[in-house]
Amino acid sequence: MKTLQDLIDQTPDLVDHLYNDTISQYHKSRTGLLATLIAPEYTTWREEQRAWRETAVLFNQSHHMPVLFVKGRDARKLLEYLSPCTFSNLSTDRAKQYFCVTPRGHHVGDCVLNYYGEAEGFELISGMPVLNWVRFHGETGGYDVQMRFDPSTPYARDGQREKFRFQLEGPNARDILDEICEGGWPEIRFFHTAYVTIAGCRVHVLRHGMAGHAGAELSGPFAELDRVRDAIIAAGEKRGLRQAGTRTYYSTPLEDGWIPYPLPGIYTGDELRAYREWLPADSWEANMQLGGSLYSRDIEDYYWTPSALGYEKFVKFDHDFIGRAALEAQMQAPRRVKRVLRWHHDDVARIFASQTGDGPIYKAIDMPTSYYGWPQADELRSADGALIGMSQYCGYNINEREFLSLACVDEAFAEPGTEVVLTWGEVSGGSRKPHVERHDQTTIRATVHLAPFSKEAQEKLRAVI
Amino acid sequence: MKTLQDLIDQTPDLVDHLYNDTISQYHKSRTGLLATLIAPEYTTWREEQRAWRETAVLFNQSHHMPVLFVKGRDARKLLEYLSPCTFSNLSTDRAKQYFCVTPRGHHVGDCVLNYYGEAEGFELISGMPVLNWVRFHGETGGYDVQMRFDPSTPYARDGQREKFRFQLEGPNARDILDEICEGGWPEIRFFHTAYVTIAGCRVHVLRHGMAGHAGAELSGPFAELDRVRDAIIAAGEKRGLRQAGTRTYYSTPLEDGWIPYPLPGIYTGDELRAYREWLPADSWEANMQLGGSLYSRDIEDYYWTPSALGYEKFVKFDHDFIGRAALEAQMQAPRRVKRVLRWHHDDVARIFASQTGDGPIYKAIDMPTSYYGWPQADELRSADGALIGMSQYCGYNINEREFLSLACVDEAFAEPGTEVVLTWGEVSGGSRKPHVERHDQTTIRATVHLAPFSKEAQEKLRAVI
Repeated sequence: MKTLQDLIDQTPDLVDHLYNDTISQYHKSRTGLLATLIAPEYTTWREEQRAWRETAVLFNQSHHMPVLFVKGRDARKLLEYLSPCTFSNLSTDRAKQYFCVTPRGHHVGDCVLNYYGEAEGFELISGMPVLNWVRFHGETGGYDVQMRFDPSTPYARDGQREKFRFQLEGPNARDILDEICEGGWPEIRFFHTAYVTIAGCRVHVLRHGMAGHAGAELSGPFAELDRVRDAIIAAGEKRGLRQAGTRTYYSTPLEDGWIPYPLPGIYTGDELRAYREWLPADSWEANMQLGGSLYSRDIEDYYWTPSALGYEKFVKFDHDFIGRAALEAQMQAPRRVKRVLRWHHDDVARIFASQTGDGPIYKAIDMPTSYYGWPQADELRSADGALIGMSQYCGYNINEREFLSLACVDEAFAEPGTEVVLTWGEVSGGSRKPHVERHDQTTIRATVHLAPFSKEAQEKLRAVI
Repeated sequence: MKTLQDLIDQTPDLVDHLYNDTISQYHKSRTGLLATLIAPEYTTWREEQRAWRETAVLFNQSHHMPVLFVKGRDARKLLEYLSPCTFSNLSTDRAKQYFCVTPRGHHVGDCVLNYYGEAEGFELISGMPVLNWVRFHGETGGYDVQMRFDPSTPYARDGQREKFRFQLEGPNARDILDEICEGGWPEIRFFHTAYVTIAGCRVHVLRHGMAGHAGAELSGPFAELDRVRDAIIAAGEKRGLRQAGTRTYYSTPLEDGWIPYPLPGIYTGDELRAYREWLPADSWEANMQLGGSLYSRDIEDYYWTPSALGYEKFVKFDHDFIGRAALEAQMQAPRRVKRVLRWHHDDVARIFASQTGDGPIYKAIDMPTSYYGWPQADELRSADGALIGMSQYCGYNINEREFLSLACVDEAFAEPGTEVVLTWGEVSGGSRKPHVERHDQTTIRATVHLAPFSKEAQEKLRAVI
């Protein structure tokens, strides 16, 4: 068995397979993978979460994110043709949230894209499904491009990456940057980039806001990781900076509203057979691990669209791209849109309480991240029981003191304040996924909110540092 | 600053220091230390806990436990003089739960002790305070002994240990051992030892019952770790064996009732000054990390006695030993005894519920282990508010579906069924310990039970495998 297509051909029920028998990468199911590189908690995730709202927080992204470098005469042409994103404003001083869709308009994956000019080309950061999609088309589409894949540290043969990468967030981030950047922090707009000098190192900065706050992503040569980190930590000491571990890091979507790693829409359709024959049988896509209460034999029920992910604003019909006709049609029809769900406190408390005593024992709600599939897919129903959406990412945010989930909801039920019901826990006592305990299914009432949930995040997401 | 005594001399308030500014070894505060050697969870701690009650579970103890080897003409004389345990029944086919007390009868530490005969001598497994105590007396007391200290893997210069060590537990453990031991499993009594051959390796086995069930500890040359583990796992596959990670491992005291790592009673008293001048300023003892609601300026309020730990039954006045006179006096006076506390479900649920909403936010109760000090010390009060004991180790046991803690209680309040009140959370919003979040203090009602809590554990603790 060599390819994803072989796997699909030999698997009687693909959803059953992805639901039970895969081990997703980087997931809770591989807890030890990064633990010596990045601590699960440097102090406690609760104070690490508070730091991004109250002081400042430093995430180390140097190890877990794969990167694809793309350059050459046709690099721009390739990337533009693969994405609904516009390239009309392409420049070396701004980054893009880059994503691709299939010919039928299903989401493939998304990543951050940096452009370093003609010679150096493009950098696509994280998001294996989109990185693979770009590699496939770059290799097979007759483009004049050179691509270099930089795997995450645990999969790098020599444990070396090309670049270090940090994310600095929180209300004190600007002061810290102002102190450590030679000549002070250059004022740059959201998602714009610049070069600065920190501790003698040339550092690329991207004005970002991953945790909902003013923030910056800093990258540079991997060998200078410690020097730059030491400078940040020294300047952060008097400003309440905390280093954040993986537990906190994986809870940031609850603050910024980004839906991580939806299932790519690539498992069906003859038009994608060649792609599935290109993807290895042990690829990321072959190891996606479905989990949650939504259980459908039709894998397309787990697919996403740009509108469901909140990416409609990035879709520009100013160029030809794969999936263009499908997206034009999608946008005329009723669709699902991205929302945050605020879980009812009493239902969460009832599920916690079920861990003691003699009654049914519900799927435990872990903190700060409560999902147990990668991706998670929990069914959302209206008060009268109709299936109206899919909840994906879920967990706890101590700044809001809420359990939240990120979901797509039918437009008719997307009005803020609408009450919906999430089914919590898997069917039939739980899947065979080794990290899911046996449990009973129950429901959680939830209220629909705009994304991101936090008013502070909404206001500050685009504030200049 | 070279010694523990220097540290004490230069620290205005020792309790304040141990409460706030230390980082204990192997604790939750060092989450990454063992993560590549032993996964935090192999599957999920919930099913790993269930496995020790329902099928079988394998713990890897090869990495975290320091070992002291003691041999020589005076080895027995030294160890006997340092312990209230009798040596009258010393033999190479049984192990001992070995412990030491100070001249004033305070607990120093405990460990498992194996005896391999005149030539090879003794092996003391885990329990740094008792290992250090033995080393001090062995080095300074004029004994003819040779000692060799084998640090835990993260502190071993070459990452190599002398021995592997596994613990196999659960109702199916006997069948697994019977299959893998050449000639079948030898019937041996509780805490007795023997040699067996597994996968061609000579393996020392100790009939044990750490998790409350029939179990065995297996040890042998470190180089044969994988071979023996593979044999266990292969035989366990059809018997529901699960490997258990560190999260599950550190929750076993809730099943077997053993109180791990009480504060050693060595910080006070002129008679112990020489010992404190021998202990380095960065020793285990200098890094004990107090946590919990019991806050006393007098460090002796955190000391333990053999009766409080349930070790009175091991105290034998058939020999002279350090602390003998003190223990004789202790046993005539009213004292504290070991008990298990069953926490009231409603109070636990209320504390979980406080994580959402606008009210006070109580110290989060993590699962499966809920302590956040090493050692934890929570005050216990009677219904009318008198201080009647100290709760140390706490957490959740899914087999009982209870939150439990291990405590010492004044004899007058030790009757099973007595209702007591535990203060949960630290004073003044929480200590400066980096892994303790800011929180409010509250109370948890609890009922006194005999240790171990589980009827199954009580019945099976001494069952022959």
